[in-house]
Amino acid sequence: MNLKVVAFDADDTLFVNEPYFQETEEKFCALMQDYLSHQGLSQELFKTEIANLDLYGYGIKGYTLSMIEAAITLSNHTLSVETIEKIIQYGKELLQKPIELLEGVEETLQALHGKYKLIVATKGDLKDQQRKLHDSGLGHYFHHIEVMADKQVVNYEKLLKRLEINADEFFMIGNSLKSDVLPVLALGGYAVHVPYHTNWEHEKIAHQVVHPNFRTLNKITEVIPILVQ
Amino acid sequence: MNLKVVAFDADDTLFVNEPYFQETEEKFCALMQDYLSHQGLSQELFKTEIANLDLYGYGIKGYTLSMIEAAITLSNHTLSVETIEKIIQYGKELLQKPIELLEGVEETLQALHGKYKLIVATKGDLKDQQRKLHDSGLGHYFHHIEVMADKQVVNYEKLLKRLEINADEFFMIGNSLKSDVLPVLALGGYAVHVPYHTNWEHEKIAHQVVHPNFRTLNKITEVIPILVQ
Repeated sequence: MNLKVVAFDADDTLFVNEPYFQETEEKFCALMQDYLSHQGLSQELFKTEIANLDLYGYGIKGYTLSMIEAAITLSNHTLSVETIEKIIQYGKELLQKPIELLEGVEETLQALHGKYKLIVATKGDLKDQQRKLHDSGLGHYFHHIEVMADKQVVNYEKLLKRLEINADEFFMIGNSLKSDVLPVLALGGYAVHVPYHTNWEHEKIAHQVVHPNFRTLNKITEVIPILVQ
Repeated sequence: MNLKVVAFDADDTLFVNEPYFQETEEKFCALMQDYLSHQGLSQELFKTEIANLDLYGYGIKGYTLSMIEAAITLSNHTLSVETIEKIIQYGKELLQKPIELLEGVEETLQALHGKYKLIVATKGDLKDQQRKLHDSGLGHYFHHIEVMADKQVVNYEKLLKRLEINADEFFMIGNSLKSDVLPVLALGGYAVHVPYHTNWEHEKIAHQVVHPNFRTLNKITEVIPILVQ
């Protein structure tokens, strides 16, 4: 490998994220329990999120707008203003969650720092992702953060162009096979998968990944012997 | 000048933006006219936007959430669900506005293309800004787009670090003295101001700018003789 850039996904790779969204969804379902079953509410919210994804992209602000829209639909337009205010508040709370580093992250960054250009490559709200990285205390390990509109092949192509490197000089570390692994492999880059115990429905894929440039790790620290001889 | 990167602001520098926000605000005020005067409504909306800026950052999704929040407050929590649905719809319409290029932009980009690394440096929603650049048909002139969480000195410092250039190798073109000119000059870069006929309240500054690295232009094409000998 002739690597120049090692990129880390942020949410559920560096620090806790999906459990916070799930906690918010629990609160949303409790708030709306008079209207439908938990499962029915979750499904409607997911449907609204996906329908709005093209317009809103990823991140908490779009998620909050989708919660409001789904709640209005679910209530057959009879929702109270108080309920909408609570949903706006849930969104604001989600934007202020504490940062909980995942195990082995700091050790890994210490080992790789100075040996490659380290970046964060994540999707979501720009300001929110920058806030989280700042609050994580990990900012000084990274050359910079790249917030991506999406993590499809075309988005990684743009990223490589911006970084002025070839795909085989790029190594991605993340918890999503769909977003962090498959598009990078498709371009000829390297990727490792560090599974997290929970994943958003939208990030799931049904098949196994087998590729010479790819490995699944049990812990993020296992990337150290791969990248540091 | 030993320039490497010439950066263009997007909104109201490359294409129309603020008039679309003003049009939306007009619709918001018409919708809420039973509650307060036009001026009172505008003031409350602006107050809510600024109060949420730290949490939401710039862009249409945060603006939509602030409209909903301001409307609820203005109605003393008696707002109808239909009104909230209309506000969500206004936000979605704003995210799908046609792109109207400003005069002289394409001529300027053609003249500078290939002579410098041209980038877009803008704030707002990541996905929205990428969509607008794509729809503008100007994407091929630019090396890439940088969406910034804000345009203060610290944000330009991060930008220069990401670009791996010094401030005196950076030239910024924009319609906001506050966001596109002052922080760039403070770092030792170059900037020109191309005023647009209307400006968001938050972007206004009260004083004149006089600096050897700075000029005000009447038209964006006037930057061509400055940058191309």
